[in-house]
Amino acid sequence: MSDVATTAGGGGPSGDGGIGPLSDRLSLGVAARLSRYLQVLTQARKMGKETISSQELSEYTHVNSTQIRRDLSGFGKFGKRGVGYNVDLLVSQIRKILRTSGQHNIALFGAGHLGKAIASSDIFADHGFRVVAIFDPDPEKLGEQVGPAMVRHPDDLRQMVEEEDIVVGVLAVPTAAAQPLADQLVDAGVKIIFNYSEALLHVPPEVTVHTSSPAVDLLYALYFYLT
Amino acid sequence: MSDVATTAGGGGPSGDGGIGPLSDRLSLGVAARLSRYLQVLTQARKMGKETISSQELSEYTHVNSTQIRRDLSGFGKFGKRGVGYNVDLLVSQIRKILRTSGQHNIALFGAGHLGKAIASSDIFADHGFRVVAIFDPDPEKLGEQVGPAMVRHPDDLRQMVEEEDIVVGVLAVPTAAAQPLADQLVDAGVKIIFNYSEALLHVPPEVTVHTSSPAVDLLYALYFYLT
Repeated sequence: MSDVATTAGGGGPSGDGGIGPLSDRLSLGVAARLSRYLQVLTQARKMGKETISSQELSEYTHVNSTQIRRDLSGFGKFGKRGVGYNVDLLVSQIRKILRTSGQHNIALFGAGHLGKAIASSDIFADHGFRVVAIFDPDPEKLGEQVGPAMVRHPDDLRQMVEEEDIVVGVLAVPTAAAQPLADQLVDAGVKIIFNYSEALLHVPPEVTVHTSSPAVDLLYALYFYLT
Repeated sequence: MSDVATTAGGGGPSGDGGIGPLSDRLSLGVAARLSRYLQVLTQARKMGKETISSQELSEYTHVNSTQIRRDLSGFGKFGKRGVGYNVDLLVSQIRKILRTSGQHNIALFGAGHLGKAIASSDIFADHGFRVVAIFDPDPEKLGEQVGPAMVRHPDDLRQMVEEEDIVVGVLAVPTAAAQPLADQLVDAGVKIIFNYSEALLHVPPEVTVHTSSPAVDLLYALYFYLT
């Protein structure tokens, strides 16, 4: 379940007012929809699609096409009637609006199956996230090349965070190992933690934890299938 | 980004009216919040917590505690002032309300790093999903035991779906392989596809595709951190 559940929940305004000037902070709802459009647009670009219509975007995002046109009309004319939106242009515009156009460096913990899958895929790289460090305390794994980086001991974390300007820590570790690593990340100044373990992490309020939960996403999908 | 984004977006009603009798279909918003509570409760249970307060639930879900108490008051008295909710009881009640108490069988495609990570973890098992079949066309992997199941050739899919009552297909495969497998799943009658690839999948309207997108979840978290 993504943090978006918060939005759907008691959280912020529902954000149906379209997108204001860049100086405004987006509502949770708008930011969630833009992220969703961005996901589909990135997939479309990978598959060689140059243009996409609001109907197609609607089909893949389940947001209705009127809402999509309203969201996207707010920040310029990208759509041409009958042709659709230019995929490349829309990707860069949305990333600009989400202020995430830059390069963001990730520290990955755990060089097991999941860590290796993450490090060798381009799911993160496609969105400007770069795995610059992989940590695992297993002496047999130290020095091993996994995807773009070499496995290091977690003791090197603080130094790597400073040298590599790491903003996100990804925990692909067993549940019992997660909290101590989260503490180390917080101590080292990392503000976003992506948690693939099942630990409930205690962090200070200024740190954001996103816990991956594919099974709960499935339950949610199943509910609407079964009823 | 989870399907919940849809909820936050233009989708259904915002669902702030609490939870009605079991015969009603939940709004997208309520179902999303319940799924989110369920995630945290399951984590809490794993960590040996027996009770949890609405304040704690709020801290982990980012749903405000008044909303949580309202959601949970609708279906019985689980909470005791000063003690909190009984975790086990709440888990089984929410699963009953989400009508996902049973056992649901999964077919997993891809016996690479990601497939192995999924098959050997209990992220799905904890929520009643059981990986009953793993498919990979690589002759070297055929017959290999991966987590709870043996690797089979994708040609056996239809037979396994019938024999094992498979309701969900999980695609942990390269992007180019995803659409043909989705087609086979649809042909075999599977109605929910969990897509870890970056393919934009074409499926009939009665089939639900959930595409995993950790990077987009991260971008979304980053936006609220940066602004």
